[in-house]
Amino acid sequence: MMNNKYLIPVSAAAALLPTFALAQDAAAPGFDEIGPYIMTTLLFLVGGFLVFWMAAGFAMLEAGLVRSKNVTMQLTKNIALFALAGIMYWLVGFNLMYPGDFNGYFAFNFVPTVLEPVGLAAADASLDYASVASDFFFQLMFVAATASIVSGVLAERIKLWPFLFFVLILTGIFYPISGSWQWGGGWLSEMGFSDFAGSTIVHSVGGWAALAGALILGPRLGKYKDGRVNPMPGSNLALATLGTFILWLGWFGFNGGSQLAAGTVGDITDVGRIFANTNMAASAGAVAALILTQILYKKVDLTMVLNGCLAGLVSITAEPLAPSMFGALWIGAVGGVIVVFAVPFLDKLKIDDVVGAIPVHLFAGIWGTIAVVFYNSDASLVTQLIGIAAYGIFTFVASAILWFILKAAVGIRVSEEAEIAGLDMAELGMEAYPEFHRG
Amino acid sequence: MMNNKYLIPVSAAAALLPTFALAQDAAAPGFDEIGPYIMTTLLFLVGGFLVFWMAAGFAMLEAGLVRSKNVTMQLTKNIALFALAGIMYWLVGFNLMYPGDFNGYFAFNFVPTVLEPVGLAAADASLDYASVASDFFFQLMFVAATASIVSGVLAERIKLWPFLFFVLILTGIFYPISGSWQWGGGWLSEMGFSDFAGSTIVHSVGGWAALAGALILGPRLGKYKDGRVNPMPGSNLALATLGTFILWLGWFGFNGGSQLAAGTVGDITDVGRIFANTNMAASAGAVAALILTQILYKKVDLTMVLNGCLAGLVSITAEPLAPSMFGALWIGAVGGVIVVFAVPFLDKLKIDDVVGAIPVHLFAGIWGTIAVVFYNSDASLVTQLIGIAAYGIFTFVASAILWFILKAAVGIRVSEEAEIAGLDMAELGMEAYPEFHRG
Amino acid sequence: MMNNKYLIPVSAAAALLPTFALAQDAAAPGFDEIGPYIMTTLLFLVGGFLVFWMAAGFAMLEAGLVRSKNVTMQLTKNIALFALAGIMYWLVGFNLMYPGDFNGYFAFNFVPTVLEPVGLAAADASLDYASVASDFFFQLMFVAATASIVSGVLAERIKLWPFLFFVLILTGIFYPISGSWQWGGGWLSEMGFSDFAGSTIVHSVGGWAALAGALILGPRLGKYKDGRVNPMPGSNLALATLGTFILWLGWFGFNGGSQLAAGTVGDITDVGRIFANTNMAASAGAVAALILTQILYKKVDLTMVLNGCLAGLVSITAEPLAPSMFGALWIGAVGGVIVVFAVPFLDKLKIDDVVGAIPVHLFAGIWGTIAVVFYNSDASLVTQLIGIAAYGIFTFVASAILWFILKAAVGIRVSEEAEIAGLDMAELGMEAYPEFHRG
Repeated sequence: MMNNKYLIPVSAAAALLPTFALAQDAAAPGFDEIGPYIMTTLLFLVGGFLVFWMAAGFAMLEAGLVRSKNVTMQLTKNIALFALAGIMYWLVGFNLMYPGDFNGYFAFNFVPTVLEPVGLAAADASLDYASVASDFFFQLMFVAATASIVSGVLAERIKLWPFLFFVLILTGIFYPISGSWQWGGGWLSEMGFSDFAGSTIVHSVGGWAALAGALILGPRLGKYKDGRVNPMPGSNLALATLGTFILWLGWFGFNGGSQLAAGTVGDITDVGRIFANTNMAASAGAVAALILTQILYKKVDLTMVLNGCLAGLVSITAEPLAPSMFGALWIGAVGGVIVVFAVPFLDKLKIDDVVGAIPVHLFAGIWGTIAVVFYNSDASLVTQLIGIAAYGIFTFVASAILWFILKAAVGIRVSEEAEIAGLDMAELGMEAYPEFHRG
Repeated sequence: MMNNKYLIPVSAAAALLPTFALAQDAAAPGFDEIGPYIMTTLLFLVGGFLVFWMAAGFAMLEAGLVRSKNVTMQLTKNIALFALAGIMYWLVGFNLMYPGDFNGYFAFNFVPTVLEPVGLAAADASLDYASVASDFFFQLMFVAATASIVSGVLAERIKLWPFLFFVLILTGIFYPISGSWQWGGGWLSEMGFSDFAGSTIVHSVGGWAALAGALILGPRLGKYKDGRVNPMPGSNLALATLGTFILWLGWFGFNGGSQLAAGTVGDITDVGRIFANTNMAASAGAVAALILTQILYKKVDLTMVLNGCLAGLVSITAEPLAPSMFGALWIGAVGGVIVVFAVPFLDKLKIDDVVGAIPVHLFAGIWGTIAVVFYNSDASLVTQLIGIAAYGIFTFVASAILWFILKAAVGIRVSEEAEIAGLDMAELGMEAYPEFHRG
Repeated sequence: MMNNKYLIPVSAAAALLPTFALAQDAAAPGFDEIGPYIMTTLLFLVGGFLVFWMAAGFAMLEAGLVRSKNVTMQLTKNIALFALAGIMYWLVGFNLMYPGDFNGYFAFNFVPTVLEPVGLAAADASLDYASVASDFFFQLMFVAATASIVSGVLAERIKLWPFLFFVLILTGIFYPISGSWQWGGGWLSEMGFSDFAGSTIVHSVGGWAALAGALILGPRLGKYKDGRVNPMPGSNLALATLGTFILWLGWFGFNGGSQLAAGTVGDITDVGRIFANTNMAASAGAVAALILTQILYKKVDLTMVLNGCLAGLVSITAEPLAPSMFGALWIGAVGGVIVVFAVPFLDKLKIDDVVGAIPVHLFAGIWGTIAVVFYNSDASLVTQLIGIAAYGIFTFVASAILWFILKAAVGIRVSEEAEIAGLDMAELGMEAYPEFHRG
């Protein structure tokens, strides 16, 4: 396409004429009819690229929190899982999750996503909604976030290919099936479950899948020894902080885009509310962890502050719209408190979660889903608990079965030698920081 | 909310019906009435998330320019200050700054911000402006930028909690009060002062607060010794460069969003002008520092180029709309020149500004505020100077008093031992790069 | 401008009245007339800032793939080239590239870009297109990408100033002239050449310019020795991965913005298609390299995965709209395969491309331009090949002449001592990571 306005009168006028005509012709649909479609499509595209950016956030956060000998592997897993999720969600996931019509539990709808034709006519568009392509693009980014959660928990010891195989099934099958129960109009949606942008459907699901993996995979060598927890500090806190800021930025798209409409005064104003509440919950989660670690340990713990911030974000994700900003503050702050207590609690159970993703995404995800009842009068606690349990049981059991199969079939854990040497040299033959001395 | 277009006819139709009706009903307000509101709200949201991103930029820039033993602390300060600013600006700042009606100097309006109700009706909206939530979200990001400037100047020696207490007062009280003089419709605005996006109101204010702190805190140990300036090179110039690119990107939102309207041909075209001019000023500032350091030192100095770029951005911030692109070029270039001369000048005065933020934000901020008179015929030099002086005197004096109180009450400087050992291990017990050897 | 909605009734009403009037006055143009202009301008601004962000992506990718002794120099080159491109494209490039009227090969139109006046009236706007400022801003970012490609290939041995002089001519003269052949409505556009967002016009052109430089400059010392290829691993794969994610994000703006219109149902839906296809091609390129390196080398190679991803993006850039998502998948996957074979192939030819940019941008760019014929029935293979050849011959010859002149006049290569010591200390006197031990 010509990249030039000056050109229009010269040679491209013919090609552009239909556009003109559309705008000028009184019989063609005007902005009162097409404006909402355009704005909502734009919301999906902008929201989608922000959520895409979260993939970089997870990659940086995780690369910063693993030891330097495993950084190349962690980076490889993160970019590979995103790429695979993008293919699987197109191949089967999207149509499994949004089947149109199904029994409410499962849809036999294994077909790839098809986009609208090029140059869609207004008469053929879902003018009350948005473009399928933009909706697909937006939803795809959510499934990738789920997979990223798993990679962090299982870092520094899981083999690359079994992990990637798990990602294929998680993003193509597990997540779409359970997602369809609510966002596809299935049984939980019928029952009145409420999870605006996915505290449970996205974040807890990632957490449950990771928890099953962590239990079956076991802790890193030397992590729990002689009854003590051996700290294994992350290699690059600047990267981890960058990752947190990236995730925070992406979350405006995650929650704001989940309004799913931007073409009316009410909708765009709601998106504004969501942005303000999302920012408040993140701030409150960070501050809660800041103060609490100072009180508990007499020293602020940066990694706790980062995870507190993320837990605040997860906590508000189930209902970022209805709460007042004060509501967002205390809901997010509770998320930050959960993280500070849950990280040592997991260590007590000898569940080795390298980056703290189970507290952040699973525990705060459960909390956020419960917290919906405080500000959304349509939500009932019982239904919220049923939803939490349903997602938990399904994802944990399905994931555990898959992890066991993978373990039996090919093994999921690297050798002791490889783990000690680091996955980068042992598995990939490539260091992330070959010139920086390792202590 | 259902994430599914296919669902609409099935079960969510009832919930969406009002939306349909709005778009279809001839009596409901059409896009001619609601379009500007939607577009301006969108401008605030997109502009706001870009300015949010500047928080990551400051964090990376500062983490890259401090020595590796202070990186964890610098990261902690940056994320904590942003989180605290977000809470304080909601709690008191926003309504102090935009009180609606006041004596022009100070408003007794200490109430938290309240957003519009969920699903705002068009009839209840400020259709001539934008959503309050989006406006709050956008303005909040500006106050956070002010606080980030302080953290860079005072790095590597200030205690965490006194610094954060200062941030609370700066973002909740000082900045909103002085901001109200101009953007809240106070006395400077009545007088005709002109500062489009805040060369003075945001950047110089941050610089004055930091300067007061630097004078009271004193230079880092060993920085000025035996009449010589001891260079203390930053630990990670890749991070510093990344931070600069992040700030540059965020600045399109900072200046472009400050158009405060996007729903007419004139407004959106003006936003385009602002983007082009902002980019030009940044380019010119970088090139000026590039050439000047080659001439002066026979070697290009990357940190000067980064700061020259940022100074170009600060310089155009007071008036990014009116200048021609040639105007943006020379205004930005002067900013770059200022930095190259001001950094050694501050060292001569033994004012220790770790990242060069006083030249960038204070000196170039003053320059940019003066430069308004060259292209904006409504601005007078005298009024610009009055504004610059008013912000300088108020912020410097108020900040100095607060720094003195903090110094007397709890001390603001870490011990010599802690400073030599590095704040990361001494204060936080956590290294940013535990595996990279320190020379 | 006042940053305050509350203020409007108090003191700024007068200033805002025209805006009101425009929206309310039945005689003023309504959204049916101005909506497309506003949306397309917004597309350019959002697309433009995304492509801007690619400058940071190139900087991080290249800084991560060079050895630590050359990181400061690589960062300096990247920020300097972007700044210089921004000035040159304003000074001559934009009007050379989009001259309005010319002989189809070359326009004598050496005048700086002029933006619209402030507060453009709707009656004076190109309501069928978008604001000139936004268009300029968007196009500017493309030329900068071209220059970034060159900096990566020639890293670790080229002198700073000759490189920057080359950038001046490339961005101000070479790229605009050849770009005008297609996007300026010149002879290739008349002939029916098709290159939607610039696989050839942007990416291959950068590759050809770099290839000419690489041949004239020669390989790094010790790279090819005794018939063997000596690997010189990048110093920071976390940065390289971050850079790739940044580029991926920016590419949504690169390809999506190249739709050049967003104000109709057809256009915004097409932008959605482009986003989905762009993401798919990147995913497929990454996965292809992932699988292929596992098969060929029994180990996944992260740098190949990163370059495979980028090659997927380049491959889809010539036609991101017409293909189905399956089309995007296989076109992108072929790009990834090309990279895996082309990197060792170049080494066999002793062409030293430090970051792999020739396979990614030149080879995959050629492939993408050919692949247009599979989904766009208006494109013919012969014309595509003519276009590829024309850009190749012109850019390679013009670049080679310029490199030879620079070599003869001032020399383009640093001394052996400087190369061994590293450009950072030898040329700039500043290390990027002064405290991290180098092995």
